[in-house]
Amino acid sequence: MTHDLDPLPGRCGPLSLRDMGAFHVGGQAVQLQGLPSTREVLAAGGEPVLLDPNGRYWVGQMYAQYFLPQAPTQTTPLQLWHGGGLTGACWETTPDGRPGWLHYFVRRGWDTYLCDAAERGRAGYAPQHLWGAPLSQTAEAVFARFRLGPGLGGVALADAARQAFPEGQFPAEAFEALARQLVPRWAHTDAVILDAYAALLDRVAPSAVVCHSQGGMFGLTMAQRRPDRVRAVVALEPAAVPPPSDEDTGYAVPTLIILGDRIDGDARWPAMRARIEAFARRHASVEILSLPDLGMRGNSHMLMMDRNQLDIADIAHEWLARTLQD
Amino acid sequence: MTHDLDPLPGRCGPLSLRDMGAFHVGGQAVQLQGLPSTREVLAAGGEPVLLDPNGRYWVGQMYAQYFLPQAPTQTTPLQLWHGGGLTGACWETTPDGRPGWLHYFVRRGWDTYLCDAAERGRAGYAPQHLWGAPLSQTAEAVFARFRLGPGLGGVALADAARQAFPEGQFPAEAFEALARQLVPRWAHTDAVILDAYAALLDRVAPSAVVCHSQGGMFGLTMAQRRPDRVRAVVALEPAAVPPPSDEDTGYAVPTLIILGDRIDGDARWPAMRARIEAFARRHASVEILSLPDLGMRGNSHMLMMDRNQLDIADIAHEWLARTLQD
Repeated sequence: MTHDLDPLPGRCGPLSLRDMGAFHVGGQAVQLQGLPSTREVLAAGGEPVLLDPNGRYWVGQMYAQYFLPQAPTQTTPLQLWHGGGLTGACWETTPDGRPGWLHYFVRRGWDTYLCDAAERGRAGYAPQHLWGAPLSQTAEAVFARFRLGPGLGGVALADAARQAFPEGQFPAEAFEALARQLVPRWAHTDAVILDAYAALLDRVAPSAVVCHSQGGMFGLTMAQRRPDRVRAVVALEPAAVPPPSDEDTGYAVPTLIILGDRIDGDARWPAMRARIEAFARRHASVEILSLPDLGMRGNSHMLMMDRNQLDIADIAHEWLARTLQD
Repeated sequence: MTHDLDPLPGRCGPLSLRDMGAFHVGGQAVQLQGLPSTREVLAAGGEPVLLDPNGRYWVGQMYAQYFLPQAPTQTTPLQLWHGGGLTGACWETTPDGRPGWLHYFVRRGWDTYLCDAAERGRAGYAPQHLWGAPLSQTAEAVFARFRLGPGLGGVALADAARQAFPEGQFPAEAFEALARQLVPRWAHTDAVILDAYAALLDRVAPSAVVCHSQGGMFGLTMAQRRPDRVRAVVALEPAAVPPPSDEDTGYAVPTLIILGDRIDGDARWPAMRARIEAFARRHASVEILSLPDLGMRGNSHMLMMDRNQLDIADIAHEWLARTLQD
């Protein structure tokens, strides 16, 4: 678990922190009433507890963990926002055990915030009286949707490596470790999640946001709504962009959108890329970087986990450092 | 967020890590079939996704984050196991913003594992087709059950400080930050959670386990089942103990059980304490430390968050270091 042989910046050496910690932010207290009580034993062998669901709950809060390097090199904090059905864990150790983008940015001297958006991970989620049941995604669906391979069909997860695209950058032999990271989600909580991100942006100093997939949509939306709190965005394959009808509010935050490989053959990504390209045409502050155009082939939707993830992190770091210096 | 004025060991100074990271462990792949599909837009403005719930899911896995100090002073890893309706976040920053037991043990030189038990936090949880809906706990119920005060009734959470026990050690003025940490839970997943802890213990070197409440029950149970993998246990107010019927399997792991204040006046804790005392009488390796007997008054059920939490951490650290040296 040490990485002393790798000489490139941000890739090795101890992590010296002046502080770390965590907090919950945003959300609101909501009152339930008129529901029946139940009696439950909550620990085998424990005393029964009368559970009265009526009362007060926090709903819609989010969670952030911070890692503050001993010798920061950047003055702008950096926030890592994960995608749908995932948590902050996707930025930590990769499925095959390599250090993630969290380590990279801390080693590069960024004050780094690792976030669980409202509704998942350590953020928690609302009682089902309020939100209903969540959706869960199958491993097979995620394998295809994240462009790891043409689809698993009914085959065993252990066969993921054989089913993956040839010369793909995702470590498909460790696909099960990614499948274990998946968490249930809701389809109607975007407004709640955005409110919590707004509260987080208000709490931390004006930040750079590095975001992915569903989180990419949240990052671009918050940059549009709160340009005073978002100084720059690196969006890895954002699942959506702010629609043209919002164009009158403008979009002025420097933004780099990074796209991986094999978009052409995908069922959904050509349409999503077309919207991203139209968004970039409308706003001079938005730049698109398609990795295949740089000669980087084989990247999946999970750019921060791919084998060449640190080369992509270099691109993000250098663009952010340069942009924030201007 | 620095703590340079406090001269006591483990309480201040930078956190120098030789590594950190995270992984999921345990659980099993489960197949669902015969359920109808739905079409969902998962990111506002995104392309609709056909969600077929039939397929493979990981169920029952857990999550652990590790923080490995640059200069470890202990050879045994230390695992922090949270209580019911909570996540690993309870060992991080306290509700009122002080560094938690995670910082303390890392600064004291322990390789420390911060865990989210199966079914919550970054561990995720099973599709509801398999587990049904979770239980959520109200802020008011938790306020009383954690012995922060006599009960909130219908009053606003902002009044928690006024409703708290006089001279209680819990930072009741920050009660809302604790209420935001609560996550839904199930009442019938103990076996799943224990299987995941067994997998975690197998993955990490033989460990010391510091556990709380529902996690206390899991810690004692794993020490009984896997004495080869659990070298010592510090259980903060365990919500239950292994029952006498299991006594024939013995219980030989050195164990310190720490109890807080105001147990006598509580609805449930006198019976739980009686079982803990009977457990200690049956097993010479089990020791009980009641903080009021040491003259430490006012501790709640949330010992790791109380104002004197670092004094209690000192007790745990010194007992563990001494016990593991023997």
